[in-house]
Amino acid sequence: MNCFLVLRILGALSLFLSATLLTPIPFSLFYQDGAAWAFIEASAICFGFGLLLFRSFSSRQEISVRDGFAVVTLGWSLFALLGALPFLLSGAIPSYLDACFETMSGFTTTGATILTHIEALPESILLWRAMTHWLGGMGIIVLSLAILPMLGVGGMQLFKAEVPGPTADRLKPRIQDTAKLLWEVYLLLTVAEVALLMVGGLSFLDSLCHAFATLATGGFSTRDASVAAYNSAYIDCVITLFMFLAGVNFALHYYALRGKVSGFWKSEEFRIYLFLVLGATGVLVFFNQGTVYASFFDNIRYSVFQVTSIITTTGFGTADYEQWPLITQYVLVSLMFVGGCAGSTAGGIKVARILLLFKHAHVQLYRLIHPRAVRLVKLGDRPVDRDVMQAILGFFALFIGTFVAASLLLSLAGMDLVSAGAAAIATLGNIGPGLGSVGPTDNYAHVSTFGKMILTGCMLLGRLELFTVMVLFFPSFWRR
Amino acid sequence: MNCFLVLRILGALSLFLSATLLTPIPFSLFYQDGAAWAFIEASAICFGFGLLLFRSFSSRQEISVRDGFAVVTLGWSLFALLGALPFLLSGAIPSYLDACFETMSGFTTTGATILTHIEALPESILLWRAMTHWLGGMGIIVLSLAILPMLGVGGMQLFKAEVPGPTADRLKPRIQDTAKLLWEVYLLLTVAEVALLMVGGLSFLDSLCHAFATLATGGFSTRDASVAAYNSAYIDCVITLFMFLAGVNFALHYYALRGKVSGFWKSEEFRIYLFLVLGATGVLVFFNQGTVYASFFDNIRYSVFQVTSIITTTGFGTADYEQWPLITQYVLVSLMFVGGCAGSTAGGIKVARILLLFKHAHVQLYRLIHPRAVRLVKLGDRPVDRDVMQAILGFFALFIGTFVAASLLLSLAGMDLVSAGAAAIATLGNIGPGLGSVGPTDNYAHVSTFGKMILTGCMLLGRLELFTVMVLFFPSFWRR
Repeated sequence: MNCFLVLRILGALSLFLSATLLTPIPFSLFYQDGAAWAFIEASAICFGFGLLLFRSFSSRQEISVRDGFAVVTLGWSLFALLGALPFLLSGAIPSYLDACFETMSGFTTTGATILTHIEALPESILLWRAMTHWLGGMGIIVLSLAILPMLGVGGMQLFKAEVPGPTADRLKPRIQDTAKLLWEVYLLLTVAEVALLMVGGLSFLDSLCHAFATLATGGFSTRDASVAAYNSAYIDCVITLFMFLAGVNFALHYYALRGKVSGFWKSEEFRIYLFLVLGATGVLVFFNQGTVYASFFDNIRYSVFQVTSIITTTGFGTADYEQWPLITQYVLVSLMFVGGCAGSTAGGIKVARILLLFKHAHVQLYRLIHPRAVRLVKLGDRPVDRDVMQAILGFFALFIGTFVAASLLLSLAGMDLVSAGAAAIATLGNIGPGLGSVGPTDNYAHVSTFGKMILTGCMLLGRLELFTVMVLFFPSFWRR
Repeated sequence: MNCFLVLRILGALSLFLSATLLTPIPFSLFYQDGAAWAFIEASAICFGFGLLLFRSFSSRQEISVRDGFAVVTLGWSLFALLGALPFLLSGAIPSYLDACFETMSGFTTTGATILTHIEALPESILLWRAMTHWLGGMGIIVLSLAILPMLGVGGMQLFKAEVPGPTADRLKPRIQDTAKLLWEVYLLLTVAEVALLMVGGLSFLDSLCHAFATLATGGFSTRDASVAAYNSAYIDCVITLFMFLAGVNFALHYYALRGKVSGFWKSEEFRIYLFLVLGATGVLVFFNQGTVYASFFDNIRYSVFQVTSIITTTGFGTADYEQWPLITQYVLVSLMFVGGCAGSTAGGIKVARILLLFKHAHVQLYRLIHPRAVRLVKLGDRPVDRDVMQAILGFFALFIGTFVAASLLLSLAGMDLVSAGAAAIATLGNIGPGLGSVGPTDNYAHVSTFGKMILTGCMLLGRLELFTVMVLFFPSFWRR
């Protein structure tokens, strides 16, 4: 690995973070919330640190695959460590560990919070909290559609190729160009949601924060009661729609904006994603009707919101689903493992991987009956390369293994069986709220220090598709 | 599929069952428990049914792979349906569905029971209940070491080859010879355990029943309080030892009896199995010391018993582990998924498969750093064939998928989250007791009819390594 180059890039990322830390200042001055100095100090620290790294190290070498792994994992960790400064310096979160937990939850677009009185916080701090989501989401789109496929992580190679349309029209291969195109889509969707939320009567700040949290499938709200606080069917609809869109491969949005709307339907992953959302909503509506909701309209409104919020791993809440029939809770927990589409800002295992796992199992069954038949696993029309399938199978085994290990450590940290398992998947899948003591009406404030460290690790592992982080623990990674 | 041949074999199996149903009659007469007629009637029904099938159908064709799948799945189901007759006819279990649940639990060596007052049952019925375990265990040894490898199910091909020693000394390839050799080992171990239990003061009947349930890793006891009823350190030790042995590949026992004891240590799966038992016991002892048990000796005695009982999927109990620290419960639940060694009578995913999943994930990580390196997954010294690895990965995906689907259906049947999940893995892994409402001090009597049907299906699916049952649901399986 080229340490000098990695450190130089980390320096550049700090300089970028320093600039973004200035954004909340005008809001702080407008609301006179007294947090402006915290942002100035935090920005100065990031600037100084970044400049030091950027100037001290230089390298003429091109960035290698190994450098890429180090930059992604260390970069995300650095953002959590430095992005926590405004929370600490403004006094909003007195403990640095807690501040790091909250910031990691932001940048990984998880949305798990240790805050108990969100509405009492300075407005600029709320904005920064939502911004960590949005910046994290920007990172994830590029990571999942440009960087990870290049590094060959967890079968993500597949999703560069699944973009429909003629070959010459593929997304431009270089990371920078891809990033620019996709970020335009991301920005456009954000602006659209802000406008629609403002039409619904939300303040500019609230609209901005919720749009940031929606498009990044994060889930931080500006209200203690999350989206339920607005108690508006219109707001629920807008947020449901944009959560759904945020869970779709952004390359499909890009092509749709260029007029190729049929791309959605041509994508097998999108079709299954849509089917899962509609199917799960149907199940929830069926079991909630009469037991939880008397009105069919209310039932659909709350059921579809919760399904979309969970499968896209956003974690917004408009209802306390722990009061719903047990079967609906099981459906929601299962969706936590599934997650959204690859190439979206959503976490979880991803719809395409789940789909391919089932297809792989099906082929294995088929081969028992027809031992001589050659049958390839396909996604859409295209056969899936054997190495890609191996990577996906390996990813699944690692995901389940990590989930079990994390649950075990969390139960060691004093959580009960349901809460430990739910907290593990809620952070590993970047969802946010879980069940039990970390359910939709609770938060992570009560978790022990050891537990918070485990959960912070889970958020990072899940967000970076496990492999990216785990390779750093191989001794041979660090050897020449 | 050759229906005539399959029906003829099922007829032969019924005739065999009819003969075994005569065994409890002398015990019934000795104890004058009044159940003798039930066995005579049941045996007569099986004999008539078997003779009808065996005489009506004949076929000159050799048995094919597809016929093999049908015989195994239908045979096990038939045994559950016919083996339930004594329970029903004697009045011990008034409901036929409950009787089938209990018998399926027996023949699949699960040990989940719907009985609440075991000690009130006729002695001959208790013997038959234990015999279903023992006969099921006989079936499983041959299935996993001779039939499934031949059918190519779930990577079981691997375990024929893992038997150590020179090639010429391999287990004789034909099913009948293999069966005879392994059954001798099985019988020998059973006789040894009966003798040791009788030395400890148990009656012949109790010794026989517990030895049957131990060697088959079943878990039916003749006492309501399970093995705890004897409250004897000696009995606990004997049963722990034999549970451990029953969780080992029986081919290793066979070679050990022929003088090649080093085979145990040469088997990587055995080493990991031993490590898991010792490691998990260490964890339990650490967390139980001072909190649950004041005496270190008691602590080890109860901890090692519970670890061995769960990892071998026996399900005997000497302590209510739901009163233990949460972390120890999580360890036990994790072990439920692992299960014993392939080629033993234990259920679960199997140690070798778990080991290979980790190795596969490791290779995937390694390849990210060294993309051009060719690195094969090995078990012991031998590289694992790519097709076998594919089958194991497919098995794992199906196992997790089946577990999730079963838990979902059980929560639909009215079970809470923990109980539904625990019941799903306790039956799918052929363990028996789970957690929550189906914990070690509870039973399955309270589960709804729908729930019992799901659980019965899980027992069969888990016991026959999923694939064997699932192929029957392929339309192309039934076509010519």
